[in-house]
Amino acid sequence: MAPEPPPLRQTKASTLKDVAKLAGVSVSTTSRALGGHPAITAATVAKVRAAAEQVHYRPNAQARALRAARTGTIGLTIPSVINPYFAALAAAVQQAAGRAQLATILFNSNENADDLSRALQVLQDHRVDGIIAVPHEDNLEQLAATRNRGVPIVLADRELPGTDIPSVSSDPAPGMNAAVSHLAAQGHRSIGYLAGPLNTSTGRYRLSVFEAAATAARLPGQPVYHGGYQQSQGYAGTGELLDRGVSAIIAGDSMMTIGALEACHERQLKVGTDIALIGFDDNPVFRLQAAPLTVIDQNVTELGIRSFEVLQDLMSGKSPPTITRLPTTLRIRDSSGPPPEHSAASTTPPPLPDVKEGGAEFHERSSH
Amino acid sequence: MAPEPPPLRQTKASTLKDVAKLAGVSVSTTSRALGGHPAITAATVAKVRAAAEQVHYRPNAQARALRAARTGTIGLTIPSVINPYFAALAAAVQQAAGRAQLATILFNSNENADDLSRALQVLQDHRVDGIIAVPHEDNLEQLAATRNRGVPIVLADRELPGTDIPSVSSDPAPGMNAAVSHLAAQGHRSIGYLAGPLNTSTGRYRLSVFEAAATAARLPGQPVYHGGYQQSQGYAGTGELLDRGVSAIIAGDSMMTIGALEACHERQLKVGTDIALIGFDDNPVFRLQAAPLTVIDQNVTELGIRSFEVLQDLMSGKSPPTITRLPTTLRIRDSSGPPPEHSAASTTPPPLPDVKEGGAEFHERSSH
Repeated sequence: MAPEPPPLRQTKASTLKDVAKLAGVSVSTTSRALGGHPAITAATVAKVRAAAEQVHYRPNAQARALRAARTGTIGLTIPSVINPYFAALAAAVQQAAGRAQLATILFNSNENADDLSRALQVLQDHRVDGIIAVPHEDNLEQLAATRNRGVPIVLADRELPGTDIPSVSSDPAPGMNAAVSHLAAQGHRSIGYLAGPLNTSTGRYRLSVFEAAATAARLPGQPVYHGGYQQSQGYAGTGELLDRGVSAIIAGDSMMTIGALEACHERQLKVGTDIALIGFDDNPVFRLQAAPLTVIDQNVTELGIRSFEVLQDLMSGKSPPTITRLPTTLRIRDSSGPPPEHSAASTTPPPLPDVKEGGAEFHERSSH
Repeated sequence: MAPEPPPLRQTKASTLKDVAKLAGVSVSTTSRALGGHPAITAATVAKVRAAAEQVHYRPNAQARALRAARTGTIGLTIPSVINPYFAALAAAVQQAAGRAQLATILFNSNENADDLSRALQVLQDHRVDGIIAVPHEDNLEQLAATRNRGVPIVLADRELPGTDIPSVSSDPAPGMNAAVSHLAAQGHRSIGYLAGPLNTSTGRYRLSVFEAAATAARLPGQPVYHGGYQQSQGYAGTGELLDRGVSAIIAGDSMMTIGALEACHERQLKVGTDIALIGFDDNPVFRLQAAPLTVIDQNVTELGIRSFEVLQDLMSGKSPPTITRLPTTLRIRDSSGPPPEHSAASTTPPPLPDVKEGGAEFHERSSH
């Protein structure tokens, strides 16, 4: 049995019926026109949209009307439950939702569009009050259609080009710029990057920010491994970058950071001395290395909380920002020392570019 | 819309109605008697049970009849999504379910009976085809009632005393015995144990196995920290055990292992030389230490797969074993060397108990 629906709030927002009346078409045509149904002509869509604007129609009002019986649950889909970053995101969303008396149903989509599609369907079958999805680009249409049926949706961690569904993600630029500047200042001239999948906004954006930062540090054309968000990819990519002679590596996510550590351990390279490594995400385990890892921190807890707050805004009929990007921060520890040939104090350092260490940088060198 | 129900299988199993008829009571009384409802007298319960036995009544037949419309989903509740052991359990269950064309709805219960209760309710509202729950002891009644309503349930990772709901857990004895024997053979005489919560079967059972193993190794009365399955508990407990002068520590779960590493790093103790540490669970990250961790491995993937197989048996009307315990294995790496005073080759080792290294032990010393 579903829990008793809470009392309906009074709302003066206009309804789908108001839009239909003004546009002179049926309610179902109106709904389909706003939902982007392919059977509706462009002329009708234009007419309905104009009417919707005129009466200040917001789909959320429809959502409230259609979905009066709240289930007290929200849905969350993440691409991998064993990726500690997404596990931490799930924990943060769930805690925030719990404080608002909402239960969180979690789905693991395995970075697979079919699994995500199924999850979205199950969540709608269950009539969740809202959905936070780490999206896959192949699910754009389904996500848009779901939203257009009145289900509040927030995209977390990733943005989807071509949609105005609100997203909450991190801005890699502050952390990545500080990371490249920091390595350049330490004397590194060959900095490899472990890039994430290019069919994710995070994979694409972090790579472009890395390349721009390298160019700004007068180190253009650095070696890049095009990988994916998996430990095995980080492991393979680190081997490849090391074989290409890099003295420093920046990993593009948590799982590739673990893989990079694995490859360095296997080659018996001392991280921080033989090779500089900057990880992604402030996973507590990354601090438990002989040389605690310097990381680009996305502040995943804040990202989870903010994602839920945006969802709450949607569920209560407010209009949250379409794009929210939280800054990343470089946390400097011991894994990002100078290259081996620079360690000896006697050598003269080569001319360095004029790097500024940005504000988004914390020094946390451990004492040993 | 729920997916189309699959065609009903023909079954000749007897129904609740058959039992009611034979017992001479109503169907609802029969159901409540079998479900352990407190309002039914012991005499009626006895009569109904006898009738049920006579007609070979199995509750699963009732379940199939009542729940003809399958939703193609199963529910899974875990106590913590950021605990890598439970994240790996969730991933294994989900993969196994996916191969059987079932979607997995995941709930994080925060090791909290209220959250688990809510999750169980939501899963039933959604009419999942079955539930795999890592249980909390305070939810025993609710779990039993849910099962008695015909929902197939499997308890994973933990057993619940006082119920015959099938469980799949690990047997700590082989790994724990091998761990204590191994440390004793290395010359350790003071071995601290980081115990889990005593209101979980795993917490209780692992502690009793540790104590028995220590006694068997002629080292009775070892120091124990009574903690919980949290990093902070492992951290605090390790500090306390180190202050009590132990030369070796065994952690009772993944999160306490992370906390133990944190405490050793903070005190600048070299794990494997200054202090021996044996972790719990074969988390890939535990291998990425200067001294890769010796661990008691529960083989969580196998545990997840087996839990799903037992659920599948229940869902198809078979009678799986009530108790399934998979053996743990000691994986020896570099973190469990001899105590500092024994490292020097010149000292004569004290008389050792006659320890046998069991079969459930793997040597994986790394080369450095």
